[in-house]
Amino acid sequence: MRFRVFVSLKPTVLDPQGQTICRALNGMGHNSITDVRQGKYFDISLAEGVAREQAMREIEQIAQDVLANPVIEEYQVELLEE
Amino acid sequence: MRFRVFVSLKPTVLDPQGQTICRALNGMGHNSITDVRQGKYFDISLAEGVAREQAMREIEQIAQDVLANPVIEEYQVELLEE
Repeated sequence: MRFRVFVSLKPTVLDPQGQTICRALNGMGHNSITDVRQGKYFDISLAEGVAREQAMREIEQIAQDVLANPVIEEYQVELLEE
Repeated sequence: MRFRVFVSLKPTVLDPQGQTICRALNGMGHNSITDVRQGKYFDISLAEGVAREQAMREIEQIAQDVLANPVIEEYQVELLEE
């Protein structure tokens, strides 16, 4: 089973790296770009034979405890393949 | 219009950061995790009034020239909203 966990800054948190990319793109002539926000994702593979519900709970736990900083970041879990 | 560009290491390229996360998770008792690979994504907003086809081409160009290193990385473009 494979999950994808998206981690991004909360919408209320400034993203200086994204802003820098946005300004750089504008400077290169891509003037229609109005905003860029960056995030990261983790593709996590699990061993065969783990029940889907249990795997989902485990991945949620990992996302919350390890992959995201809940003070400034939010996460989203997606099932990639069974 | 909003696009999401995914950038990840090519499958043939080692991902030491992902491996470290995988080992750390195993060490924390998450023994069913067999592999972790990390990637990044960019949510790019475009000004109103740009044709979808043209926007798609521009984003592809940006992904190839600026966001990804084509030697070791691959990218994928997704339309988030019109």
